Amino acid sequence: MSESLSNETAPDEPILEGIVVTLDVAGVPNIAPMGPRVDRDLTRLVIRPFQTSQTYQNLKASGCGVLHVTDDVELLAHAAVGQLEPLPPLVRIAGFSCPRLADACRWLAFQVETLDDAAERTTIVCRVVSRGELRPFFGFNRAKHAVIEAAILATRIGIVAGSEIRREMERLIIPVQKTGGTQERDAFAFLQMYISSRLPTPES
Amino acid sequence: MSESLSNETAPDEPILEGIVVTLDVAGVPNIAPMGPRVDRDLTRLVIRPFQTSQTYQNLKASGCGVLHVTDDVELLAHAAVGQLEPLPPLVRIAGFSCPRLADACRWLAFQVETLDDAAERTTIVCRVVSRGELRPFFGFNRAKHAVIEAAILATRIGIVAGSEIRREMERLIIPVQKTGGTQERDAFAFLQMYISSRLPTPES
Repeated sequence: MSESLSNETAPDEPILEGIVVTLDVAGVPNIAPMGPRVDRDLTRLVIRPFQTSQTYQNLKASGCGVLHVTDDVELLAHAAVGQLEPLPPLVRIAGFSCPRLADACRWLAFQVETLDDAAERTTIVCRVVSRGELRPFFGFNRAKHAVIEAAILATRIGIVAGSEIRREMERLIIPVQKTGGTQERDAFAFLQMYISSRLPTPES
Repeated sequence: MSESLSNETAPDEPILEGIVVTLDVAGVPNIAPMGPRVDRDLTRLVIRPFQTSQTYQNLKASGCGVLHVTDDVELLAHAAVGQLEPLPPLVRIAGFSCPRLADACRWLAFQVETLDDAAERTTIVCRVVSRGELRPFFGFNRAKHAVIEAAILATRIGIVAGSEIRREMERLIIPVQKTGGTQERDAFAFLQMYISSRLPTPES
């Protein structure tokens, strides 16, 4: 506990782990997990995709997208590793060119205000122009959160040491077993399989 | 990744980390964090308080209470360590004897159906009899979750080794710094202070 959290100067812009839908120039939807910085009222988003990502390409071309707040960890797990087959159902938003997910807790349609791609990791500031509430978020559940952490680990294979990924997954399985239901166990098991199949077998 | 998750036989009853309000025989409210097992539609709760807890005493005496889904990690952090001063505002629920928190995402008024206190840790099955939605849950945020984990650690001083609590707190500070806003940083800093003041100084 040596580090302290300086609250005086840091801005109140938490990161919201959600799902962003965008369209490419041909109108093909892309569904990607994204962690924008947001204000508490969700009026403004700062998204930082890499230039190699489809979300960046689509936002640059179309200038709009839809952020979703969801508690569906199976969707998040599959989207994180690019294995969304079939794609989840999308529905049209009246007066907006980009569709939204049919199922989510909330959706926020946004327009790009500024796009800075001087660096490999871009900074895209967006303004929310319409929104809807579909169903309540489940609430705090340690297993859901463990799936989020596991999904992040799955995207870091080749960046983070395999031994560290394995150790973290062993730690995360405990809250999944203790506090999860079917959805959380299935999502975690999917990520376990994904990671196992891509990490070299440990030597022990 | 040696352990597997058997999905076939385990029930779909995730644990929801929320806040339960109950009344004692004199009508004094008690506000406690509680992690009941719930069905996905939140119609039924299984609460397992210890016989030493006020929540158990109150549920046994009054037979009812209110569970709250909230994303307010400052409330959860303070409630976890019994430092809710002043108490958060409560409001009456029409036709129900126990009040609810004025601020929450959702509230669920429940009645006790069965209470088994043969063991020190009791098993209380409750049926939800009325409910309300007040405001949307923020969504997944790694810093909020780190506060939940830190709050659980704070309640385990004297049970879990101090060195383990310190190590976990050092790990949890990273997502708070990276992904939190003011509320999450303040709640975590409060728990850091609480834990530091109660753990013996490390030898290093």
